[in-house]
Amino acid sequence: MNSNYKVLKFKSNNSKEIKDQVSIEEPLEIIIRYKDKEYWIENTISITMRTPGDDEDLVRGFLFNERVIEKIDYIKSIELNGEPVGKYKLRNKAVVTINNSENIDIDKIKRNFLTNSSCGVCGKTSLDSLEIIKKDKIVKSIPKIQHKIIMKSPNILRQNQSEFSKTGGIHASGLFKYNGDVVAVKEDVGRHNALDKLVGFVLKKKLLDNSSQFLTCSGRLNFDLVQKALMANIGVLIGVGAPTSLAIDLANKFDMTLVGFVKEGSFNIYSNNERIIIKN
Amino acid sequence: MNSNYKVLKFKSNNSKEIKDQVSIEEPLEIIIRYKDKEYWIENTISITMRTPGDDEDLVRGFLFNERVIEKIDYIKSIELNGEPVGKYKLRNKAVVTINNSENIDIDKIKRNFLTNSSCGVCGKTSLDSLEIIKKDKIVKSIPKIQHKIIMKSPNILRQNQSEFSKTGGIHASGLFKYNGDVVAVKEDVGRHNALDKLVGFVLKKKLLDNSSQFLTCSGRLNFDLVQKALMANIGVLIGVGAPTSLAIDLANKFDMTLVGFVKEGSFNIYSNNERIIIKN
Repeated sequence: MNSNYKVLKFKSNNSKEIKDQVSIEEPLEIIIRYKDKEYWIENTISITMRTPGDDEDLVRGFLFNERVIEKIDYIKSIELNGEPVGKYKLRNKAVVTINNSENIDIDKIKRNFLTNSSCGVCGKTSLDSLEIIKKDKIVKSIPKIQHKIIMKSPNILRQNQSEFSKTGGIHASGLFKYNGDVVAVKEDVGRHNALDKLVGFVLKKKLLDNSSQFLTCSGRLNFDLVQKALMANIGVLIGVGAPTSLAIDLANKFDMTLVGFVKEGSFNIYSNNERIIIKN
Repeated sequence: MNSNYKVLKFKSNNSKEIKDQVSIEEPLEIIIRYKDKEYWIENTISITMRTPGDDEDLVRGFLFNERVIEKIDYIKSIELNGEPVGKYKLRNKAVVTINNSENIDIDKIKRNFLTNSSCGVCGKTSLDSLEIIKKDKIVKSIPKIQHKIIMKSPNILRQNQSEFSKTGGIHASGLFKYNGDVVAVKEDVGRHNALDKLVGFVLKKKLLDNSSQFLTCSGRLNFDLVQKALMANIGVLIGVGAPTSLAIDLANKFDMTLVGFVKEGSFNIYSNNERIIIKN
């Protein structure tokens, strides 16, 4: 499932507005429903950010792969519930009715899966609280970055990665000054961890200056990465890969500039173009 | 942080054993410690799979970016605790002491973060339970796959992705017969979701045959992906990207064949070579 988004495409020293197809990212809450004595109980066991489509297969595979259930026959029904929400009018709650309560180990599920929790990776407590509590938008006018600096940053990021050349399998987040100078680079197998490490480091060292710095990350741009960058009030987030729908929506909402598919010679701006100087 | 692993590298119709540097992936449990009246309370709020190194920055950035704390000054100390565990002798528990309990909103933290939970994405309840409850190993002798089929599978996967060509930003998991025929392909912005969708689909349709099928996934190979494939008893997992240390260790433990960096003309086998036919 995908949707069209307006993009300012910069290529060969020219920019033009195009429409770009973007993969949709939306939360799915998985709720198991089982009978305890004479009462029906419902418990949320997971919230995952997914691309809508094949939701029942996703739920069935998740429950089996994580061994919430031992056999898929234990699932009586999977219903996508709740009012259609958001701009795509999706039902984002999957209620899974379990055949017979003796088929599941309620205590094990409570111990291992039951969640009223958030984790930095997979989502928030409920669909309603997904948009983080952030009252202030990012200042519109700053920072301003030259297009040439944008296009150079992935290479500089890679040159500053100590691990990537060795293993070929590690993500990085780098904070840069407006002129392309590196403030700090951190690496991790998880994109979100690389960004947490970076923010933790620059906060401790008091190196963060939102008026003149920008962030470049390896890989794709999803909800999680945009959220973390927003919480650190970073105005420009650049990624070498594709953004998701939710990443763009969130960037627009809080006046962040989101740039994707950065290569030498081209990039796409998905929100708030005014921070990128595209003239020579 | 990385480590050397033995790899059977296949290239230009030849195979040889080499040493390959692999990024380390290990769990980190984040525990906050605060005073409630006269008692010190400790609560696990997150478990994340990370590359060891800069752990304090990771914890500080996570707590701030997720707004467990409003200011990093609220952190009195971060201590890496617990006995050194695993083959890398790492301390995988970070205990964060909060300066004054009035600086944190305990109820909000309990509501949003407190976790005795697992989620498919970020880890398991405790470090001890990270290795899934899986008693049986995968049958060593099956399936057997020709090297040519291995190298073709990423292209076939991509050809069967309906979304990738449109958005350039979506992962896929594909189940293949030993001869390269496609059984099913599923897509999602999350790699783990694409695999859950695939397994949910083939279980429902009764299409899974572990004696003759293999799995190819876009992207890198981490703990999460190997775990899910193992739970579905899939004997050969192929990825276009790099594996993590934990992915290889887990594949070895349960006799899965793990293949990474697959391109036309080359791939690396990280475990259980005997399932890949490398002679013409």
